[in-house]
Amino acid sequence: PRHIDWSPHMAEKGGYKHFMLKEIFEQPRAVRDTLAGRLREEEGDVYLEDLQLSDEQLKGIDRVTIIACGTSWHAALVGKFLIEEHCRVPVEVDIASEFRYRNPVIDEKSLVMLISQSGETADTLAAMREARRRGAKCVAICNVVDSSIAREADGVVYTHAGPEIGVASTKAFVTQLIALYLFTIRLGRSRGMMTVDAGRALIAAVVRVPALMEEALKLNEQVEKVARNYLQARDFLYLGRGMNYPIALEGALKLKEISYIHAEGYPAGEMKHGPIALIDEHMPVVVLVPQGSNYEKVFSNMEEVIARGGRVIAVCSQGDSEVAAKAEVALEIPTEGEEVAPIILSIPMQLLAYHVAVLKGTDVDQPRNLAKSVTVE
Amino acid sequence: PRHIDWSPHMAEKGGYKHFMLKEIFEQPRAVRDTLAGRLREEEGDVYLEDLQLSDEQLKGIDRVTIIACGTSWHAALVGKFLIEEHCRVPVEVDIASEFRYRNPVIDEKSLVMLISQSGETADTLAAMREARRRGAKCVAICNVVDSSIAREADGVVYTHAGPEIGVASTKAFVTQLIALYLFTIRLGRSRGMMTVDAGRALIAAVVRVPALMEEALKLNEQVEKVARNYLQARDFLYLGRGMNYPIALEGALKLKEISYIHAEGYPAGEMKHGPIALIDEHMPVVVLVPQGSNYEKVFSNMEEVIARGGRVIAVCSQGDSEVAAKAEVALEIPTEGEEVAPIILSIPMQLLAYHVAVLKGTDVDQPRNLAKSVTVE
Repeated sequence: PRHIDWSPHMAEKGGYKHFMLKEIFEQPRAVRDTLAGRLREEEGDVYLEDLQLSDEQLKGIDRVTIIACGTSWHAALVGKFLIEEHCRVPVEVDIASEFRYRNPVIDEKSLVMLISQSGETADTLAAMREARRRGAKCVAICNVVDSSIAREADGVVYTHAGPEIGVASTKAFVTQLIALYLFTIRLGRSRGMMTVDAGRALIAAVVRVPALMEEALKLNEQVEKVARNYLQARDFLYLGRGMNYPIALEGALKLKEISYIHAEGYPAGEMKHGPIALIDEHMPVVVLVPQGSNYEKVFSNMEEVIARGGRVIAVCSQGDSEVAAKAEVALEIPTEGEEVAPIILSIPMQLLAYHVAVLKGTDVDQPRNLAKSVTVE
Repeated sequence: PRHIDWSPHMAEKGGYKHFMLKEIFEQPRAVRDTLAGRLREEEGDVYLEDLQLSDEQLKGIDRVTIIACGTSWHAALVGKFLIEEHCRVPVEVDIASEFRYRNPVIDEKSLVMLISQSGETADTLAAMREARRRGAKCVAICNVVDSSIAREADGVVYTHAGPEIGVASTKAFVTQLIALYLFTIRLGRSRGMMTVDAGRALIAAVVRVPALMEEALKLNEQVEKVARNYLQARDFLYLGRGMNYPIALEGALKLKEISYIHAEGYPAGEMKHGPIALIDEHMPVVVLVPQGSNYEKVFSNMEEVIARGGRVIAVCSQGDSEVAAKAEVALEIPTEGEEVAPIILSIPMQLLAYHVAVLKGTDVDQPRNLAKSVTVE
């Protein structure tokens, strides 16, 4: 029997109005726990105790396919950027309910990664069985020890988020991202595609995350005020580019799930190929525009939205007066380098969805029609 | 100088109220023209006069990446299914504005395919230049002869849609799909992954397309009536699975572009991971549920929507009384086998968007904020 290290009080609200808010504020702790004991900072490498794949096996991989559903699928999309950038191996991301019914091109040189908070997601479990049948090595990122997916996978990278009660995932998502950074370092180092210095630099970026999150959580009161001003909106768009595009998708999904507002995420460069027709003064547009390599491009997409009358809620780097001057609202987050921006950007996304939902009076922790763990197909 | 075979009268409305409607009805002709002279039915192969890649070169490819924007990106997603199924080579689909700013894993064994009606889409052109710089062979699917993308690519598969004037693409999209079927046959045959019989079967399916389209176009009057009943909807969802999922995305994009209704496409299996929270009696849901391998799964997703009060507009195979009994509306299309279903499903998607927009009084051929060819980044 495995040791269960979740204590009963972890499943109480601890003074917060909702589990979701408690879990949002727990994230710095969840990240620290997910990093604990895994960093080998001198060697620029990490130790993943249940990965169960040797350097030789990791070197033999010619493709990675990451399979997930919902919020975990958004984490997977960030993982594609990380792994391709740092490990130079092609990564495909697929939705579990799609993967399992196509005839996927997977063989023994494929590494298939499954991401599921509960480790019981029916479509993801079935996708893993299909991948294993075709000879692929399977690695799971799960939050629940000894869950079905964790047990059947060849290896596991556990997140240490602790029990997540709110149906809309927050701390589980963020620790999935952390697990993907750790896996990227391990894969990059084992394949010889990441130098010791590059490994150290990425570890240093990840180590700063909890403090940056604490800082970002100070936005809570401002976000609540912002939420009041956009309560009447029937629709939202969320825009981002590159590594931050999946966070636009995730921000939109959070709002959908708990406020029942129709929100949709888009890669900002795709706006002009259709969705820009939707923009008018009734359409709030959340634009993720932190400093980094895509900054000018996203800034220009933001200007296109404003030119068409859209109301922009920008999420930018602290002190960015140019964005603040243009947008209707600017939520400023701490960004030190762009490497971990997707994680920090997640916080205002979660808070915005939370406060809109609370003000609308929905059942935040148990939104209609949704289950915490989707164990049916 | 190249011969221009588009005559001036092709750019007139020919009795139709809008170019878009004319172009929808022209599609059987456009498909016939795109097939003309290319089928080698005896050999189960096709002849693509400007492809410029030998069997040896096609055999040497270890990955395909298809890059496009907007509607062309939806064609690319269908292409992924076709090529992986019939040629057993991994296919990645990327959005041009994302591809060009990441550090893509592309080398001389990669085949990069670019899809652009105009052949002038700025992001797609820039993505091709990036891919060529990394040594990839590039093949374009374009509608405009001697356009920039067609000129710079190693090879081209031209669509013969004729000039498309409506900003919302219809006949160009459908002929892009046809070009992808043809390319799949060529790639599968040259790599020895498709037998003569399999090639013949796929050719036979494609040859039936124009007649099936003529039949589907008879839905026009029914779709106009349906459109009247959903005019007040502020939001739509579109659901499909497998090869038909991209057509759900395309149906939603068409509605967005010309009616300014916020419509969103989803893989039907993802519903329960979030968007199902949006479903109530105000949310029309278009469900693509033709006969085929995903039929039961989509049918069950449709029942989930109905159970939560959603109003279902189903697009199903002719004579499917089970779907007709459940859905609020059933649009029945001719389906002979599922192989070409994405093409035939496109027609009711186009007609629905068209009639909703006309009844709402928008400028169908020139929707706000949109340009026919996006030649800026």
